Amino acid sequence: MSAQRDLAQRVGQSMFAADRASRETMGMELLSCEPGRAVMRMTVRELHLNGHHICHGGFIFTLADSTFAFACNSRNQVTVAAGAQIEFLKPGQLGDVLTCEGQEQVLQGRHGVYDMKVSNQHGDVVAMFRGKSAQISGTVV
Amino acid sequence: MSAQRDLAQRVGQSMFAADRASRETMGMELLSCEPGRAVMRMTVRELHLNGHHICHGGFIFTLADSTFAFACNSRNQVTVAAGAQIEFLKPGQLGDVLTCEGQEQVLQGRHGVYDMKVSNQHGDVVAMFRGKSAQISGTVV
Amino acid sequence: MSAQRDLAQRVGQSMFAADRASRETMGMELLSCEPGRAVMRMTVRELHLNGHHICHGGFIFTLADSTFAFACNSRNQVTVAAGAQIEFLKPGQLGDVLTCEGQEQVLQGRHGVYDMKVSNQHGDVVAMFRGKSAQISGTVV
Amino acid sequence: MSAQRDLAQRVGQSMFAADRASRETMGMELLSCEPGRAVMRMTVRELHLNGHHICHGGFIFTLADSTFAFACNSRNQVTVAAGAQIEFLKPGQLGDVLTCEGQEQVLQGRHGVYDMKVSNQHGDVVAMFRGKSAQISGTVV
Repeated sequence: MSAQRDLAQRVGQSMFAADRASRETMGMELLSCEPGRAVMRMTVRELHLNGHHICHGGFIFTLADSTFAFACNSRNQVTVAAGAQIEFLKPGQLGDVLTCEGQEQVLQGRHGVYDMKVSNQHGDVVAMFRGKSAQISGTVV
Repeated sequence: MSAQRDLAQRVGQSMFAADRASRETMGMELLSCEPGRAVMRMTVRELHLNGHHICHGGFIFTLADSTFAFACNSRNQVTVAAGAQIEFLKPGQLGDVLTCEGQEQVLQGRHGVYDMKVSNQHGDVVAMFRGKSAQISGTVV
Repeated sequence: MSAQRDLAQRVGQSMFAADRASRETMGMELLSCEPGRAVMRMTVRELHLNGHHICHGGFIFTLADSTFAFACNSRNQVTVAAGAQIEFLKPGQLGDVLTCEGQEQVLQGRHGVYDMKVSNQHGDVVAMFRGKSAQISGTVV
Repeated sequence: MSAQRDLAQRVGQSMFAADRASRETMGMELLSCEPGRAVMRMTVRELHLNGHHICHGGFIFTLADSTFAFACNSRNQVTVAAGAQIEFLKPGQLGDVLTCEGQEQVLQGRHGVYDMKVSNQHGDVVAMFRGKSAQISGTVV
């Protein structure tokens, strides 16, 4: 069990180091990567604001999509997103600290379903995301 | 008819000027904004790459979500995304020029459904996005 | 707490008695209705088979959609489905006993997100369903 | 071209004859099956009503899912639904005549995206459905 957790952590660190989009462009942090689970965090900054002066919904999706990627690659099988769906429940305001927690719901054969919940610092749910994954060949590390 | 097109164009220019996320952070261009329609373009650069060295799926979603925002605000009623769904059909590679065309499918009362198609420079479909919109009070310009 | 559970049970019984579609046309059973939760069951019969001789995907969706309705009305506020999304993971074969378990994930203001998991008698996941609800005025009982 | 249309029509007739769920249980009619397209119709009857005394949303989905099946099998490659998403825009009332028109949006390799629009006899849009298909081996006729 501990071996799986160690592997998930190594996969997470390796992917995150290479993930310029999430780390540099968006300013996300990877808080944890465990088998079938991941947690990430992103503070809403000026660079994230759209024409309505709130966090671009695409970047809330991106936070969830990144967390999804860590959760579904955590078993060290290269896995990609086939599709995803998001419900926007509350806007993200400048300065909000958004935390995304993701959890594997089912993994059958090559296909999995993963749920991500994005919350702000008040505990309000900002968005609910569901992703569908497909394993391809290869390992991450 | 022409008045509606002029209005859509003004709405588009005004929103785009204020949309730091799409314009500066992502490097998108707004090619057109018409009543119920919009077209945007984004070239995949280093800043868009994830840990698999392809364009982060979240940024493909963001391109579609921005185009959706212009299409659903084009009638000058402030409109927000209630949710969206995306299918990823092909990865975006470094240097790819992604074009997103969006079209209103239905607008009944305050709720609308909009479809976005993201294609690359070879005409391959990279992603299909469907957004659900909700009008709130106020006008854009 | 017990009062809420009693109310949910009464709401469930009242709705189910009136729900000809689920009860008579589809042959579903309501196994439980609790605050924010419901469980239903349906055996795949000849009447459910499509042209590929498997359970029509629409009827798997219908089982999940019914369970969703019981879960989101369980607090006695009349609530309707705004939309839903389903992933089909395994076909339903003639004679399969499909059980759907549904759980509220978030309820903020008038809007909620509910997840349904449809499994067969072997414990395989047949489908994952996510519904978005909207409360309207009125009570169920 | 005519050969493709003839084939689509034969595929449609063959599948519909075998589709007990759509034809007998739901009472649908297949109005047309062309390459990448299909049209079906269903009148809302007592058997379709749920506990709110409107057409069960699952049966509106089922109408769309059947139409999707005819559209995506119309090229005579056995094709199944991987998933689908629906937005409910207006309820179906007893006696309403629901028509579903479906159209292939993209077919790349084994995967396709198909859009279905369900309208009533007044031309109001009742639901918008998007399905994702996966071809498997074999032909329909």
